[in-house]
Amino acid sequence: MKNSNFLNVLSKNNTTYTPIWLMRQAGRYLPEYRNTREKAGSFLSLCKNPELATEVTLQPIRRFQLDASIMFSDILVVPEAMGLDLYFTDGEGPKFANPIKNSLDIDMLKTVIPEIDLAYVMSTIRNLKQELPNNIPLIGFSGSPWTLACYMLEGGASKNYEKIKAWVYSEPKLLHLLLDKISIAVADYLVCQIKSGVDTIMLFDSWGGVLTPATFKEFSLQYLEKILQRIKLSLPEYNVPSIVFTKGGGVWLDQLNTLSCDALGIDWTCDLSTARGKTNKVLQGNLDPVILSVADFNTIRATVKSILTKYQDANNGSLDGHIFNLGHGILPTAKPENVECLVDAVHEYSLHL
Amino acid sequence: MKNSNFLNVLSKNNTTYTPIWLMRQAGRYLPEYRNTREKAGSFLSLCKNPELATEVTLQPIRRFQLDASIMFSDILVVPEAMGLDLYFTDGEGPKFANPIKNSLDIDMLKTVIPEIDLAYVMSTIRNLKQELPNNIPLIGFSGSPWTLACYMLEGGASKNYEKIKAWVYSEPKLLHLLLDKISIAVADYLVCQIKSGVDTIMLFDSWGGVLTPATFKEFSLQYLEKILQRIKLSLPEYNVPSIVFTKGGGVWLDQLNTLSCDALGIDWTCDLSTARGKTNKVLQGNLDPVILSVADFNTIRATVKSILTKYQDANNGSLDGHIFNLGHGILPTAKPENVECLVDAVHEYSLHL
Repeated sequence: MKNSNFLNVLSKNNTTYTPIWLMRQAGRYLPEYRNTREKAGSFLSLCKNPELATEVTLQPIRRFQLDASIMFSDILVVPEAMGLDLYFTDGEGPKFANPIKNSLDIDMLKTVIPEIDLAYVMSTIRNLKQELPNNIPLIGFSGSPWTLACYMLEGGASKNYEKIKAWVYSEPKLLHLLLDKISIAVADYLVCQIKSGVDTIMLFDSWGGVLTPATFKEFSLQYLEKILQRIKLSLPEYNVPSIVFTKGGGVWLDQLNTLSCDALGIDWTCDLSTARGKTNKVLQGNLDPVILSVADFNTIRATVKSILTKYQDANNGSLDGHIFNLGHGILPTAKPENVECLVDAVHEYSLHL
Repeated sequence: MKNSNFLNVLSKNNTTYTPIWLMRQAGRYLPEYRNTREKAGSFLSLCKNPELATEVTLQPIRRFQLDASIMFSDILVVPEAMGLDLYFTDGEGPKFANPIKNSLDIDMLKTVIPEIDLAYVMSTIRNLKQELPNNIPLIGFSGSPWTLACYMLEGGASKNYEKIKAWVYSEPKLLHLLLDKISIAVADYLVCQIKSGVDTIMLFDSWGGVLTPATFKEFSLQYLEKILQRIKLSLPEYNVPSIVFTKGGGVWLDQLNTLSCDALGIDWTCDLSTARGKTNKVLQGNLDPVILSVADFNTIRATVKSILTKYQDANNGSLDGHIFNLGHGILPTAKPENVECLVDAVHEYSLHL
């Protein structure tokens, strides 16, 4: 793919302006998404229907001048393919009917054959590669092993992560066994996504930030690296860039910098300029997503300018090496007109700065 | 007060061992607390009953060799004294029946006269100063203006803080007006606590970590400093040490270091040794509270040793300047026997190291 500013930044080439895309850009804040989702019946049926998943992936691309597309799916399709029974409740989010409780449950997990078990994702990717404009790259993704294990042990969202932390502190061997199994499934899944056509892969370590520095290294970081290595070994002929995002990882940029990925996502609590001082990797972020729900155009434009200027000052006067994004997924309350204002402001200011 | 290792550390004197206390140490994990709370009727009646509040404050002091006591109360008694109608729901936590919606609501907030409006807190403090062993200092506290404003605008706990962030990004002047009013109430409240006998004050900035670096500085940090200054001006003859704790503040230690407080609390995501490198202030923390719910004695002891050793290595071989604590409040699921193991391990290892 040529003429993609997003891919240019990831491969450390010079760019004419700062590319932007938004985590969860195909989502509930768009009326057309809500229509398609209603047509699909449930969130999970939408994930599993390649035509409709393709449609919702394309919706934000049609509306906004985004520089990248991310396949519509959910991180929990991997544990589901491993045999856990996934369902979604209104208001409470995803749940597993049969969370992992002991070593027998780990033994019973299925080996994922992504070509078969997650064939619907691969169909979505192939559809998208046909339908996306040829300058818009497609991002594939997976949850990190730690984050998936959180859901698999807790059975859903959690406040204090007491079940998985019981394993961190009392059953570390068992947890490593589980994380190892998940890592293989995730790596094979991402390899399959790359073979199916994605241009970039991203690992979402959404709950890495609930750990301590030492337990993050032991239970999240090493498995992120294991996946990155396994992908490189499986596909030595491909050179697909990779992005790792740990929410709350601003305190561990030194650790994250050791990963063999190309870019690091950072949330809104961490200064882009501080982050620039700690790593040479491409940085992706870091606008507070709430802005798109509550601010007016002037505030959005001023905030964009301040983020870009701060980055430029910390990066020897250049905007290279930065992909604009939110610090977390876009909220259902975001206003589409605010998203348009944001995307245009990033392009306009970055062309001028 | 003499012979308090806790106060010695806060005033940067040498100590023989590392002092320890636990945020929310008077709490639901103790059966005797649950009994007293049942006697009181509700959480709020317990806060407002000086005899019972004194009793629950003393309970952990009787059980464990803790080095400091913290008065039993709740940060939301200040907004309640300002006129908001506070109630507690099971499972959902605190709520305000009449959250702040506009400038009129701010105008209607009452000026707090802590001697009268929060007289029950002052009675608790005076009781405690009589009943506590004379080597156990008493910590008074308040919520930070930002954290209290979060509750006052959101009406309770929040996931995305959309209501207060709407003010951050669209009504900053109104929010400053509110934060200013809260700051005065908090400062006067803490001054009154000091006059009533507390030996140390602590500001809990529990939700400061949901901001960006720039908005943290503007909407939380400056009001923390304003309070610290107002206390010093009101009571030039007192020299009561102060601790500020921002949950998630590990990314902003440079900012927090500018405060004129004596100690900074840090949560479990931030390395004590990294923190030691960024500030000369006393550091308080930073064990993951979940450990007390899920780990065995050996793991607790090993973790204590590792935290103390890490600190010592970063502090030129000395354990001075560190108060052991959790990185957040103790959980209701914590096991009392684990708390005992923790407290004893901190004392034992720090004497030997």
